[in-house]
Amino acid sequence: MTSKAASLHNPYFHKEEGEKDIWSLINEAAHDASVNNPDRPIYNLGQGFFSYNPPDFALESVADAISKPQFNQYAPAKGNGNLLASLKQKYSKDFGYDITTDQISITTGANEGMLSVFFGFLTPGDEVIVFQPFFDQYIPNIEMTGAKVKYVEFEFPTNFSSENVTGDDWKVNFEQLEKTITDKTKLIVVNTPHNPIGKVYNEEELTKIGELAIKHNLIIVSDEVYENLYFEDKFPRFSTLKNLPELKERVLTVGSAGKSFAATGWRVGWVIGAKELIKYVIAAHTRICFSTPAPLQQAVSEAFVKAEENNYFEVTRQQYLKKYEIFTSVFDELGLPYTTAAGGYFLLVNLSKVKVPKDYSFPDSFKNKTNDFKLAYWLINEFGVVGIPPTEFLHPDARVGHGLENCIRFAVCKDDEFLKNATDRIRLLKDYL
Amino acid sequence: MTSKAASLHNPYFHKEEGEKDIWSLINEAAHDASVNNPDRPIYNLGQGFFSYNPPDFALESVADAISKPQFNQYAPAKGNGNLLASLKQKYSKDFGYDITTDQISITTGANEGMLSVFFGFLTPGDEVIVFQPFFDQYIPNIEMTGAKVKYVEFEFPTNFSSENVTGDDWKVNFEQLEKTITDKTKLIVVNTPHNPIGKVYNEEELTKIGELAIKHNLIIVSDEVYENLYFEDKFPRFSTLKNLPELKERVLTVGSAGKSFAATGWRVGWVIGAKELIKYVIAAHTRICFSTPAPLQQAVSEAFVKAEENNYFEVTRQQYLKKYEIFTSVFDELGLPYTTAAGGYFLLVNLSKVKVPKDYSFPDSFKNKTNDFKLAYWLINEFGVVGIPPTEFLHPDARVGHGLENCIRFAVCKDDEFLKNATDRIRLLKDYL
Repeated sequence: MTSKAASLHNPYFHKEEGEKDIWSLINEAAHDASVNNPDRPIYNLGQGFFSYNPPDFALESVADAISKPQFNQYAPAKGNGNLLASLKQKYSKDFGYDITTDQISITTGANEGMLSVFFGFLTPGDEVIVFQPFFDQYIPNIEMTGAKVKYVEFEFPTNFSSENVTGDDWKVNFEQLEKTITDKTKLIVVNTPHNPIGKVYNEEELTKIGELAIKHNLIIVSDEVYENLYFEDKFPRFSTLKNLPELKERVLTVGSAGKSFAATGWRVGWVIGAKELIKYVIAAHTRICFSTPAPLQQAVSEAFVKAEENNYFEVTRQQYLKKYEIFTSVFDELGLPYTTAAGGYFLLVNLSKVKVPKDYSFPDSFKNKTNDFKLAYWLINEFGVVGIPPTEFLHPDARVGHGLENCIRFAVCKDDEFLKNATDRIRLLKDYL
Repeated sequence: MTSKAASLHNPYFHKEEGEKDIWSLINEAAHDASVNNPDRPIYNLGQGFFSYNPPDFALESVADAISKPQFNQYAPAKGNGNLLASLKQKYSKDFGYDITTDQISITTGANEGMLSVFFGFLTPGDEVIVFQPFFDQYIPNIEMTGAKVKYVEFEFPTNFSSENVTGDDWKVNFEQLEKTITDKTKLIVVNTPHNPIGKVYNEEELTKIGELAIKHNLIIVSDEVYENLYFEDKFPRFSTLKNLPELKERVLTVGSAGKSFAATGWRVGWVIGAKELIKYVIAAHTRICFSTPAPLQQAVSEAFVKAEENNYFEVTRQQYLKKYEIFTSVFDELGLPYTTAAGGYFLLVNLSKVKVPKDYSFPDSFKNKTNDFKLAYWLINEFGVVGIPPTEFLHPDARVGHGLENCIRFAVCKDDEFLKNATDRIRLLKDYL
């Protein structure tokens, strides 16, 4: 029964009784599994949070920041001056050309950075192109402005059920992309390294998207929160494309301290781009969050300086290569194909060879879901291993019959021992092949 | 010149070249004044940030929180469990009846709490009633949802140019209020203690507003971020109105850790209300910020426990009574009337007796503004004292000819020595009466 006052709600945010978002559904299944089997630890490789603490130098920076009165009060809406200076330095180096601090907006996490971009540019009726699978938060963030999402496919690699594939095998459907652009299109959202695929867009793909953006006067919103975790020689990005230097005027690059410093709970992110575009991001951000947590901004500014001294990002990259090595070994052993991650901290595994017992009993909340939800439930309940069903990252109309129905996304941002223990559990799948 | 990509911006967030928001305008004037007169310190009583650090027990709680891995990663979207428990305890005591943790949504500051309420309930075309003067952030936060703001006046006290007045003298125009309610009205926004007036709504006013909310099926959004700073025997609030207990079903109370613990930069706030309403606030918050800074949430949860042990809120209240005593003494001496603050940390002073030299030269950015902007500029430049021109808290149509044109808002959340020094400067106004 709905009270009279509750009837005033915005229907966009309404859920029917018992209807749960994917995170609640999976976390509750994990909770139930641990209650049912209290002696067996649960290996949660679901949500992308780190199992370990941020580096000591970053924690020391927090302690330092809170000791100073000014860093416990409102930061300027556009961001803490020291953090702006640190980011100017890092990105001038990474991009290979100088950027200025008025090309940066500090936001309350990359999430609120994306939302600030959407509000800074979109009005009701505008259109935004998103490639699917997508990071699920993009969709409501765009729709809250009154704009519409238009979906363009990554083609599911035809050979992925039988062999390992690469990010390049997940091809952007460029024909569909150009057809999807209308005179209402304002933004194209790109995520590289990509969650959940692990794809890093190659230069050819970036160039084709860039050319379309120039041709149709679009802005590219490039969510690059995993930018420091790429596993090939270099990380191609829109902001550094040598053959399309004019793209700088229409690319907004989104970054994250949480992802960079293993501190997803800090909620410090940023958007970088042409000054003329960034001013709208700052204006929207000022109205959404007013300002971003001041002590954590100051801490991140110091952490960047220390990271440079310690070669922290390169060391972390090497550590992640090892994490992937540990974690993928069990799938190699079982002959279960995955998409080799070129970046980020996820692994997308194809479990179509795994035979879940036909008479397995699923709770009501999983019964009517696609196969990946059932796989995820079974993995949690029988093996104590938590992964995320990736059809959640597709539009509902695209879910049934999509190759992702047989896949699970695992997060490897966990310590090595944890990953080894998880592979011991996953190895038990050999009885179900 | 606007680039092609920049032309895609949302016009709502557009500012003409050189057009500045009030905070930039005032802060830049303060900066210029300190450059022009480097030997004279500036007493900034403008923006409501604290000149001193949060209490040690709160800072220790931050240090404690960051030492634990889980508090550096994503908090649950609805909030850190320990903070929910601390708030349940505090508000059950303050309200005089038990509330449950599912009646609370933790948000990224009270600001994002208000925005989450607006998105949780409003759709384009809906109407929201706001009393003016208002806290300026409400307006864009409401309008971003596509809803419309409808303004109802506090009547400017007729005797305020010649004598001190109280919050009760700023009367809500109830006739106008009832006329302003239409079948599109969903929310009434109340701010008590009120910024910038310092008014605490009395029980009669709360009851009349509450009765209208019940009669017309409206939700009351009560921004009570200054709830711990009230200077009379008790703080009347919608959630505790004995004569209208059914109001609990339709009141959302907004609170702030930044205001409670002198830590405006921490960005931890909350919304409290009926579970059936709070679920929409949580749903919107999840899409706006996803989650609130985890270590600061944990720190605030501990700070509340220690605050109870130390009687911190009562001690702070007594300290603020003293701050007001220090600061108002100079206006008493000069015969400049103010609104006696019943709560909060602002003082609204009527400077209509002050004669700014007729030939005083104002920069272009102040020249075409209402008189309070000129007063503010002159105070900054000639006396090194920063206050805020309060017509900024009125709809543009209401600014010219409003009594607030002769007023300045000062923030007293500064240490006592600072306030004393500021009064020495303000005393120099005696030559301009």
